[in-house]
Amino acid sequence: MSKPGLPQGTRDFSAAVVRKRQYIFNTIRTVFERYGFQPLETPAMENLDTLMGKYGEEGDKLIFKILNNGLDNPAKHDAATADFEKVLQGKNTKGITERALRYDLTIPFARYVAMNHGQLTMPFKRYQVQPVWRADRPQKGRYREFYQCDADVVGSYSLLNEVELANIYATVFAQLGVRVEIRINSRKILAALAEICGGADKMTDITIAVDKLDKIGIEKVKEELIQRGLNTQQVATIETYLHIEGDNAGKINQLRSLLGNNTTGQKGIEEIEYLLSFSQLTNNNSPLTTDFTLARGLNYYTGIIFEVKALDVQMGSIGGGGRYDDLTGLFGVPNVPGVGISFGVDRIYDVMEELQLFPDAVQAGTRVLFFNLGDAESKAAFVLMQQLREKGIAAELYHENSKFDKQFKYAEKKQIPFAVIIGSKELETGTCVVRQLSDGQQQTIPQSALAGRSF
Amino acid sequence: MSKPGLPQGTRDFSAAVVRKRQYIFNTIRTVFERYGFQPLETPAMENLDTLMGKYGEEGDKLIFKILNNGLDNPAKHDAATADFEKVLQGKNTKGITERALRYDLTIPFARYVAMNHGQLTMPFKRYQVQPVWRADRPQKGRYREFYQCDADVVGSYSLLNEVELANIYATVFAQLGVRVEIRINSRKILAALAEICGGADKMTDITIAVDKLDKIGIEKVKEELIQRGLNTQQVATIETYLHIEGDNAGKINQLRSLLGNNTTGQKGIEEIEYLLSFSQLTNNNSPLTTDFTLARGLNYYTGIIFEVKALDVQMGSIGGGGRYDDLTGLFGVPNVPGVGISFGVDRIYDVMEELQLFPDAVQAGTRVLFFNLGDAESKAAFVLMQQLREKGIAAELYHENSKFDKQFKYAEKKQIPFAVIIGSKELETGTCVVRQLSDGQQQTIPQSALAGRSF
Repeated sequence: MSKPGLPQGTRDFSAAVVRKRQYIFNTIRTVFERYGFQPLETPAMENLDTLMGKYGEEGDKLIFKILNNGLDNPAKHDAATADFEKVLQGKNTKGITERALRYDLTIPFARYVAMNHGQLTMPFKRYQVQPVWRADRPQKGRYREFYQCDADVVGSYSLLNEVELANIYATVFAQLGVRVEIRINSRKILAALAEICGGADKMTDITIAVDKLDKIGIEKVKEELIQRGLNTQQVATIETYLHIEGDNAGKINQLRSLLGNNTTGQKGIEEIEYLLSFSQLTNNNSPLTTDFTLARGLNYYTGIIFEVKALDVQMGSIGGGGRYDDLTGLFGVPNVPGVGISFGVDRIYDVMEELQLFPDAVQAGTRVLFFNLGDAESKAAFVLMQQLREKGIAAELYHENSKFDKQFKYAEKKQIPFAVIIGSKELETGTCVVRQLSDGQQQTIPQSALAGRSF
Repeated sequence: MSKPGLPQGTRDFSAAVVRKRQYIFNTIRTVFERYGFQPLETPAMENLDTLMGKYGEEGDKLIFKILNNGLDNPAKHDAATADFEKVLQGKNTKGITERALRYDLTIPFARYVAMNHGQLTMPFKRYQVQPVWRADRPQKGRYREFYQCDADVVGSYSLLNEVELANIYATVFAQLGVRVEIRINSRKILAALAEICGGADKMTDITIAVDKLDKIGIEKVKEELIQRGLNTQQVATIETYLHIEGDNAGKINQLRSLLGNNTTGQKGIEEIEYLLSFSQLTNNNSPLTTDFTLARGLNYYTGIIFEVKALDVQMGSIGGGGRYDDLTGLFGVPNVPGVGISFGVDRIYDVMEELQLFPDAVQAGTRVLFFNLGDAESKAAFVLMQQLREKGIAAELYHENSKFDKQFKYAEKKQIPFAVIIGSKELETGTCVVRQLSDGQQQTIPQSALAGRSF
């Protein structure tokens, strides 16, 4: 028998970690609900058809596929052998695998919207907090099984949705105590930049290069742009663009003079200004920051894009999202626009851990340990314990009649703050000893007064 | 492009269902916590080694295995082809699959305890609420992906643990409003029955037959016992045993005279009496019922066994569990006894739905819809809306300036109870109209008074 282990890139979460993660999830969920978003849960397994071809060639390779059951049925051998040949060619065949683990929450959501389109009240606002699986090479901070935490609005072109999502970001991070910068840009502004630099068909080249700015620096970006066929003048314009800086108003002014009267650019600037105007309504110290270098490589974004960075820790983005024009077209339901955001829960956890932002109360486990000092004593303790539990106080009775030491040790290891002790003397007099374990202070009180006490 | 669908036996949960399910989960979790149990989460994927051979031959076949990634790497073709031959023989090979989806929560828990044995405070009380996957044929009430909800105590032989678990059942179902019978038996009593009927080696035969009583009736059970090699006199004794009835005390008396001075039987009866004595301490109307026909086919139970049945709906058991003597032996850590219970959440959901036991408040979605009647109006609405949200009230601003009708319709479909309307007149006078949508009652109040109002 080999020593048991975990698959690479997966984790067990023990109580302390579960509680901290729940604290993050609950904070986010509560805000989602307050903004009128409704929960959705989809199955971990999707039909392979639903997922394949949605994440690009690289993504497809990272999908965990489920082996069909019953392949040992002799009647299926020949077909299965032939099908397996295709798997070796990198093709998927229903004979070997027809289901897979979801890779993200967006495609299952699109599948859900496509399937239930007629019944949904539009605009449809859903949130979803569930694990996803990716066969990525595991490394620090990258797992094969991890949670995503998404909110999307579909069926509306209104920018008010972007306003709301930006506010959700601001509210959640304020509640978690994480200082952030919510970077915003519009893909329309990037499109305008392409239009004035070589034409709209250069949009993808420019976006891909600009998206690497943080990682490779401006010189390498310029090199890449040249390689991608832009001329020196165009690259100079892009460099000017990338050097735009100042406060939000200042940056918008510089951008406006660079883009001139390009219509797409003007629309993009209007979007940004709309967001900022709402942000200023209720927040004197808005975390919204325009960042025209923000590109988010994905091709499906068409309008506002978001990215959230923690201010006090060096870390990749802890949130991101944007507007897309066609969520469900791939599933046969066209013209469903949407906008969504995602929280990077694992990174948020790391940030909060590093900054020690988890409140102590998150770890609230058992408050009171009743000592077990014999049969009759434990029955008296049991009755009192049930009274505390009915009042919502987490309590335990030590599982057996052991030495004081052992019972104290248990309380200490589980960080239980109070012990209630009923020995033969207390049993006789109807009293109990309440001991505060941090400082050893204790008092004897009537058993009838215990449930009225605070713990 | 084919119409999107879901894999057989899996489900989407829309908002109303998620909320009801969360209500069940939260009720159970809160009680677990109050009893000193701590949360654990394990990954959906386990090493195939960890799972295989733990659920019997039939169980093994129902495990969903994950196809290895990268099989299209030409360097691996020959090995993969040879390995696939073995899959066709019903064997698992690491070349094709080395991971699988968890089949239950018990084996991953055992794996966790075995891996972390030295660090855990014993007795270790954990609860776990996570989905499991089984390639069972889907049918009404049976899914391929469903949640389990378990609490276990390991590292203690004390019967106080059984007392606690029985109380958890009673408390949870009382809080959910589901009237239940918590059936208890001890495998020691079944062992004693075997000892007086043909010897201890007949234990499995007797248990398997008795376990079918509910499904096939007493005559068929008798037939099966004969087939399994018991003689008429032994079957007669078992029939007497199966006919034991009355209240708890009456049943115990009959059992005592049937089992005579069999030592194993006396131990079993002591266990039952211990549980009942605690149950009576705090509960005048205890749902604990002795049921000596309760067998729970699984071989690993050794002491008290539990089964919960709803009283007001015809339905299979909605909970079950028992004591086992060796949780982690399979993983190289011997002598870890334990006892656990499980809640059948899908069935509990069905029972509560049928009896209409979900409180209306479970569905608390958005409370207030702010109408959108123009740019300036919506900005005023937005500021007020943020005040309500800060007070914890879920609120939305309609996404665009539409006709009244359309906005009312949205509120109606989403069952939002209140509308707040700010038109040009209200904007001028600093007021707003608050309308209760159930009866159309409305009043005009100053905007400054809105956040002080209750919704």
